[in-house]
Amino acid sequence: MKVRVTVMLKDGVLDPPGKAIGHALHTLGFANVGEVRAGRVIELELDETDAARARAQADEMGRQLLANLVIESFETEVLA
Amino acid sequence: MKVRVTVMLKDGVLDPPGKAIGHALHTLGFANVGEVRAGRVIELELDETDAARARAQADEMGRQLLANLVIESFETEVLA
Repeated sequence: MKVRVTVMLKDGVLDPPGKAIGHALHTLGFANVGEVRAGRVIELELDETDAARARAQADEMGRQLLANLVIESFETEVLA
Repeated sequence: MKVRVTVMLKDGVLDPPGKAIGHALHTLGFANVGEVRAGRVIELELDETDAARARAQADEMGRQLLANLVIESFETEVLA
């Protein structure tokens, strides 16, 4: 199964890359852009046929390695 | 509306961060992890009430700034 883990900074944590992207979009003429947050996404191929187990594994990977839970939160989804 | 742009390296483009994550997960005991791809996600607040227009704008931002279309592809979705 393929799973996706999306890691974002928690609300309130400063996000300089997101700010830079927002400024760049304004410069390009996208005037209606408000807050921008930048994060990471990790797609993993798991040798696992059960979607619930695959997702539980992805959750565990997020907790152990993929996200820094002090400043980041993550969500997981099973893609296929 | 809130939109999300997910940027991934195209298939066939080397992804050293993805490889590093895969190795780290194996070291942690996640033995059934296959290919790992790492990408970026950008969440944007748009001052726009029409979902189709918001998505069209996000597509344009992806083409102009957020993705390097030589080596990356991107997808957009409207979150709310």
